[in-house]
Amino acid sequence: MRSFEELSKEFIAKFNGRHFPASPASLYEPAEYFLRLGGKRIRPVICLMGNELFDEIIQDTYSLAIAIELFHNFTLIHDDIMDKAPIRRGMATVHEKYNEPTALLSGDVMLVVAYNYINKIRSPQIHQVIHLFNKTAMQVCEGQQMDMDYEKISELSLSDYLQMIELKTSVLLAASLQMGAILGGAGEGNQKHLYEFGKNLGLAFQIQDDYLDAFGDPAKFGKQIGGDILSNKKTFLLVKAMETATSPQKKEMIELTRSNSPDKVKRMLSIFKACGVDEAAKILKEKYIESAYQHLEDILVLSKRKDPLKQLAQMLVHREY
Amino acid sequence: MRSFEELSKEFIAKFNGRHFPASPASLYEPAEYFLRLGGKRIRPVICLMGNELFDEIIQDTYSLAIAIELFHNFTLIHDDIMDKAPIRRGMATVHEKYNEPTALLSGDVMLVVAYNYINKIRSPQIHQVIHLFNKTAMQVCEGQQMDMDYEKISELSLSDYLQMIELKTSVLLAASLQMGAILGGAGEGNQKHLYEFGKNLGLAFQIQDDYLDAFGDPAKFGKQIGGDILSNKKTFLLVKAMETATSPQKKEMIELTRSNSPDKVKRMLSIFKACGVDEAAKILKEKYIESAYQHLEDILVLSKRKDPLKQLAQMLVHREY
Repeated sequence: MRSFEELSKEFIAKFNGRHFPASPASLYEPAEYFLRLGGKRIRPVICLMGNELFDEIIQDTYSLAIAIELFHNFTLIHDDIMDKAPIRRGMATVHEKYNEPTALLSGDVMLVVAYNYINKIRSPQIHQVIHLFNKTAMQVCEGQQMDMDYEKISELSLSDYLQMIELKTSVLLAASLQMGAILGGAGEGNQKHLYEFGKNLGLAFQIQDDYLDAFGDPAKFGKQIGGDILSNKKTFLLVKAMETATSPQKKEMIELTRSNSPDKVKRMLSIFKACGVDEAAKILKEKYIESAYQHLEDILVLSKRKDPLKQLAQMLVHREY
Repeated sequence: MRSFEELSKEFIAKFNGRHFPASPASLYEPAEYFLRLGGKRIRPVICLMGNELFDEIIQDTYSLAIAIELFHNFTLIHDDIMDKAPIRRGMATVHEKYNEPTALLSGDVMLVVAYNYINKIRSPQIHQVIHLFNKTAMQVCEGQQMDMDYEKISELSLSDYLQMIELKTSVLLAASLQMGAILGGAGEGNQKHLYEFGKNLGLAFQIQDDYLDAFGDPAKFGKQIGGDILSNKKTFLLVKAMETATSPQKKEMIELTRSNSPDKVKRMLSIFKACGVDEAAKILKEKYIESAYQHLEDILVLSKRKDPLKQLAQMLVHREY
């Protein structure tokens, strides 16, 4: 049983290097460029952890982990086009450095290469893995579409918001764990609990993300506090505040999202606090964490095998940066 | 053994109807809309023919045929974004009717659903099918990237042009036939010949396409003659003419591609004729057709099994519309 850090080192060593042919460079160099921007590689590493929870990691799972990371990067390249985002990980996005058609096509080909890695799986479970991979890929697309649809709506229900972040963020974490577990020989019950562990952890993670952006310690957070407020991003805090605010508060929030006044962040934060959504975020996050731990508890393997996942969960949801 | 028309009827009956979930409609309705625009469904039908050349069509091949048609439509949706094309099959393209982000995402999800159909294959040959499908998908992306790269170049070599149309058009026809043959139980030698038959037929088809756009009979062609010339599209005729023209002719062609003079088509056609590229197109097309027939000849099955493919080849390359 290895920790996230240990498996992460091992995965990154395997993942570094080229994944695409050399030619035509105009198509494949943008794809390689984006992969070189790095990232925490959380999804592929937890896929390995999902396998190791039940048995020694097999070669199939390493191929699958690479496919998962390529899929994730494909979604980022295309999301950046849709969001017109100029910067990712401190560097120019693909459409910004090259152009939109090239970014679109590099993303497409990255998804195809992800399926090339999946096709290396020799386990008879390959059908189950592809089924879950595809289902999840569709859900991630659905989440991104909802995110875009919801940009146009000023009042979004909390349940719609939660469904959107579940699809956009959590299901891939959950499925990465489950696909690793499938190849690790886990039974269906255990697979299901591991999926739910990942899903709840992902939701807690996203709510923590929303919270830190508004209420994080600037010294530790590393980014500008209030970035989501400035960009009018739908977050748990905004959606929940819109649900619980008084009429005048609601009116002020709607005005603020339409303005660029210099005290926009300060005023929005003060409404958030008055509505108590900072506390609500903490409570909901704890609820998801508790549910995640309960599902981990319910997995029928020796307790000590679960330690690396417990540590990872601690790290992900109690981070302050 | 059934003809292209018979199999086409059967395939279209199976293909009609929904391929996507109902919700979110903002994602899936654009995908369904595009499929409803129709098309000749050549690729999936020749996939069925590739199977039937060797044995009765199995269920796996119907799933694969649907995957191939979805893949083809995915490339069309994304190509239309990249080419900023407003019209496809007489109707608004997806990005035009909805918007670019939606078209991008609908295309993405269509590719994922294509892999869902592939995952229905139960034959142990599934790995070989996915391998060829992915390799072909990458080549189609490469062809599209080259097409965009070559738009910026005024003098393109004939071999670069032929490589580009091979990747963009021919390999998917060739692979559709071969994947059908794999599931039909064909041996490797027969598969290879069938692939080469499809590839050469595709090249002949594209050159015929270029020829008809310039020299077709307006009464039969159904589109405006000279459309490619007006849009400065790289065609066999233009590329070959640039290779064989005299200096003054070359200069005139370069000037014409930069102008929108009302006699642009007429003047370009007269240079094409002076350079003899109309004849060159016919000769090269015949060379490819001959090569296609030779490969079909070399396939070791009873000659009468090949009749439907022979008829299809006749229809594709001797059409005047």
